[in-house]
Amino acid sequence: MTVEQFLQEKSQRVESALASCMQAYGNAPAGLVDAMKYSLFAGGKRLRPALALGACEMICGDDAPALPAACALEMIHTYSLIHDDLPCMDDDDLRRGRPTSHKQFDEATAILAGDALLTMAFFEISRTGRADAVALLAEASGAEGMVGGQFYDMQAQGSAGGLEHLQQIHACKTGALITASLRLGAMFGGATEPQQEALTRYGHYLGMLFQITDDILDVTGDAAVIGKSTGKDAQSEKMTYPSVVGLEQARTMAKEAADTACSALACFGKEADILRDLVRYILDRDH
Amino acid sequence: MTVEQFLQEKSQRVESALASCMQAYGNAPAGLVDAMKYSLFAGGKRLRPALALGACEMICGDDAPALPAACALEMIHTYSLIHDDLPCMDDDDLRRGRPTSHKQFDEATAILAGDALLTMAFFEISRTGRADAVALLAEASGAEGMVGGQFYDMQAQGSAGGLEHLQQIHACKTGALITASLRLGAMFGGATEPQQEALTRYGHYLGMLFQITDDILDVTGDAAVIGKSTGKDAQSEKMTYPSVVGLEQARTMAKEAADTACSALACFGKEADILRDLVRYILDRDH
Repeated sequence: MTVEQFLQEKSQRVESALASCMQAYGNAPAGLVDAMKYSLFAGGKRLRPALALGACEMICGDDAPALPAACALEMIHTYSLIHDDLPCMDDDDLRRGRPTSHKQFDEATAILAGDALLTMAFFEISRTGRADAVALLAEASGAEGMVGGQFYDMQAQGSAGGLEHLQQIHACKTGALITASLRLGAMFGGATEPQQEALTRYGHYLGMLFQITDDILDVTGDAAVIGKSTGKDAQSEKMTYPSVVGLEQARTMAKEAADTACSALACFGKEADILRDLVRYILDRDH
Repeated sequence: MTVEQFLQEKSQRVESALASCMQAYGNAPAGLVDAMKYSLFAGGKRLRPALALGACEMICGDDAPALPAACALEMIHTYSLIHDDLPCMDDDDLRRGRPTSHKQFDEATAILAGDALLTMAFFEISRTGRADAVALLAEASGAEGMVGGQFYDMQAQGSAGGLEHLQQIHACKTGALITASLRLGAMFGGATEPQQEALTRYGHYLGMLFQITDDILDVTGDAAVIGKSTGKDAQSEKMTYPSVVGLEQARTMAKEAADTACSALACFGKEADILRDLVRYILDRDH
């Protein structure tokens, strides 16, 4: 199976599960549900759900136990994009080739759609009956994880921080939820402690790789292929890997992160091949 | 014990529990934690925690089992105030006599502090090990509950809806979380199904009473005593009980809601006296 096939299969699985989740919200205001769906079904890559489902399948041979967690992860990721795009944050008009939520609707609706998706994520994961999974998701996405990372990122804009500062931002902002995706998948697959640790390490470097390539694409990428504005980071004087260490060094760091991510999987056999291929896929991506 | 004593005792209990929760956030950005604390320790009435602790104590003689839920409820309430005060929502500069979060800090910080408090609430309640409590809290505060109510409220501004519309808004916006407070307290106290139903009914009418008196205070109250701007509802052409049914009829409805709330407690004995006294206290409040 190629990475494209893997991502497409997992994406379809989570797509229909997310559609069922939204259908159950019959008593919510229609306009709010519209805004939640607009962002949730905007053609995202579904990377986090794919990681959760893939990790679970690798451990126990079935991805079904991780499906509620996969939906919850995508809801959290989607809410974070909606809030990050707001005028007082990154002020983005375009996301995945379409107007951002506050452009399509209005700011109040965008904020509330984000709040509702965040809350819905915890409802979904609570349905597994596992409070420890709720705790893991909350830790990764809260003040010490994703939200903290966005706060660091806002503070850093226009400031000249070093590499360590940049890595701290992204370990929180992107890394924590990517790592949580793998950990939740592993948890629902019944992973052993050493397996959990290996996937945590893999997730850390995969997240770093993802962010470095994201920053590189903002410099070298084609807006039409990526589906969002490019050159924005430089415009807003945002700290990025290319701006801190230069484009060539950023490419070297991406390759190193890719190698380290793959070595973390050494304790697994062929069943981890798709996670290994995924590393190469992200390293070589053009969108 | 008077209602004032009851509220003060429960408030102190939840205050120190909340302080412990925040102390555990050593790895979060200091500026974000400051903003979370600024709103969390702003001298709120702690009504929702008091209801959860009071209901638990009434059922099992001890309020300790409901303490994590009480903290989670206050975090959710606090986040909702921060987001509701934003310029694109109710645009309030003053809350409890102090600048609102986006005035004290900035809009991005206010949004992120709210997001972090919401996420932290689910972390706290997950520590009880009860996924069913997580689900109850998420349902009450999400698109079909509190967030949905705020969305209805935003849509209704400047429009001329009837009483039914107004009651739908508030059943979601205020009622759902107040009812959830009582249900969570009862759940952690080990309540029977009929006890749960009685407290749900009590919560529904207590929430309605709370909202009616809130609307009345905006017309008749003293800003210095209430600690927030008055006359704002009329200014923003907001639908309120006085604007929809008139001040006198609003007062009558408050008394009716108070009576119905008390009758809901008929299956309880003297142990429910504090919840009965609380109804009178809210009916007569001047802040």
